[in-house]
Amino acid sequence: MEMTDPQTLAAAVARGDRRALARAITLVESAREDHRPRAEALMATLPEGPCALRLGMSGTPGAGKSTLIEALGMRLAGRGSRVAVLAVDPSSQRSGGSILGDKTRMERLSREGGAFIRPSPAGGQLGGVARRTREAVRLCEAAGFDVVIVETVGVGQSETLVAEMTDVFALVLAPHGGDDLQGVKRGVMEAADLILVNKADRDPAAAAHTQGDYASALRLMRRRAMDPEGYPRVMTVSALTGAGLAEAWDAVERLWSWRRDEGHLQRLRAEQRLRWFEAEFMALALARLHRDGRLAGDLREAVAAGRLSPPEAARRALGGA
Amino acid sequence: MEMTDPQTLAAAVARGDRRALARAITLVESAREDHRPRAEALMATLPEGPCALRLGMSGTPGAGKSTLIEALGMRLAGRGSRVAVLAVDPSSQRSGGSILGDKTRMERLSREGGAFIRPSPAGGQLGGVARRTREAVRLCEAAGFDVVIVETVGVGQSETLVAEMTDVFALVLAPHGGDDLQGVKRGVMEAADLILVNKADRDPAAAAHTQGDYASALRLMRRRAMDPEGYPRVMTVSALTGAGLAEAWDAVERLWSWRRDEGHLQRLRAEQRLRWFEAEFMALALARLHRDGRLAGDLREAVAAGRLSPPEAARRALGGA
Repeated sequence: MEMTDPQTLAAAVARGDRRALARAITLVESAREDHRPRAEALMATLPEGPCALRLGMSGTPGAGKSTLIEALGMRLAGRGSRVAVLAVDPSSQRSGGSILGDKTRMERLSREGGAFIRPSPAGGQLGGVARRTREAVRLCEAAGFDVVIVETVGVGQSETLVAEMTDVFALVLAPHGGDDLQGVKRGVMEAADLILVNKADRDPAAAAHTQGDYASALRLMRRRAMDPEGYPRVMTVSALTGAGLAEAWDAVERLWSWRRDEGHLQRLRAEQRLRWFEAEFMALALARLHRDGRLAGDLREAVAAGRLSPPEAARRALGGA
Repeated sequence: MEMTDPQTLAAAVARGDRRALARAITLVESAREDHRPRAEALMATLPEGPCALRLGMSGTPGAGKSTLIEALGMRLAGRGSRVAVLAVDPSSQRSGGSILGDKTRMERLSREGGAFIRPSPAGGQLGGVARRTREAVRLCEAAGFDVVIVETVGVGQSETLVAEMTDVFALVLAPHGGDDLQGVKRGVMEAADLILVNKADRDPAAAAHTQGDYASALRLMRRRAMDPEGYPRVMTVSALTGAGLAEAWDAVERLWSWRRDEGHLQRLRAEQRLRWFEAEFMALALARLHRDGRLAGDLREAVAAGRLSPPEAARRALGGA
């Protein structure tokens, strides 16, 4: 990587320089220890950008999430908005990336001048992926993007992560035939501000049925203070025909504006920063545990041999009770 | 909870006293801060039990995992083995438990004298659930169970957790129609020692097809040192008719015995204890961060207000660079 100093890079990002943004994200994504101080200097000098709409999008496999994001992105680009799409994929800690690969994603949107698409960084721990994506979101915001979409390619824990770094969280589902809820976890349902039933063109009746099922399920959940009347919502859309896309985006924007105007957005982001702080703190504490000779040596040995219980060893490592 | 001292409780567990085991698990599952020292004293006094076969089982929703575990458990009970089944369900951090509930699970097996079934503790963080389950596994082992099955009710990150606390990890799937891999993540596939395609009675051709697909996918993966020739394996079974169950259990036991005899089991468990140590260390570090006035005050305030970046705050909280 070219050695631009962090201040110069931050200034170029803030001017909206696309290449500088790409390089800045590469820097924060770097797993090299010696890149970290530069990455943090970059983040520390980064001016506050205008407040972008941060939208998290997740979905069950086969729901057509990427196609839907591309269709929404094209609409936004068409009206002059600048859209950035970041992907999170912690699906494999060993080999990185999902089985299907990421080669042909969002080709149309990537050719739009106002759009910026960043595929998922390769592999890494869930925590590391989360940190890098949070920093990438901040970078896109500082670069002047109006909308930053964070897409999670994985299923499971990653939805929660994405919901914890965005202002609005949308769940994309395909219409289902039976009476199950497609294995959508309650925790993910609870995090969803908007459920979009995609592929409504194929079987409108099934889509409407799915919409009804999820609307019923959502009604059983606790009303949150940061929701206006009528949210969370379930809507049917078709990325293919474009049906419902205008309404879906309108629902996203109205929710976001309401949260911003009522002060919920500021509170939400403050909470998210605190959780990020805690995650960083734990990661750093663990890194020191590995570097410290005594801890890396005696305690680990006793734990591995089964002579010392892991909770007891943890207490000793932190020094006292 | 009745106040038995930890030493007495540990001794009763080690004698195989069923009520003592249930109370011990309740103690380690307790979220009450003042129960923790007693729980740790219990774990510290617990004698090493005989080495049980720790089997992790996970599966996609609708694959019939619980029915399969019950059928395997009935077979084991029938030949005189003592089987414990523990469930892990970190699906909801807010309200606890999955949507479908847990009421009627494994009724037949729960009536078997030699079996012990413990439903999932309510809610909690993924890390907390993992700690409690690890301790519950140790308790069951100390109580003399021959087989401890840890079932994950959730999907996503919880499979990895369960794989990290068991000796052998089996993935249960239903036969599929198309050519997809049912959204099974690569990381989960890589952790699987055995893939059981259940419901083979319904459509044997589809089951065989699914078996072939997964066998192909597994062949693309790296051979692990802790696998004998022929593993990981894909097999078809039917919990309903019992077809393939004897072969499946034989495959589990042969793998486990091989790993034990070759020394892999000891290494695997040592690694698992180290990871547990690290998880405990981070949880404890975080708990202290919350209790410490200066950290809980000034730094958190600066982070929440956006005046200090979370990584920078984390470094200051740990004191220096």
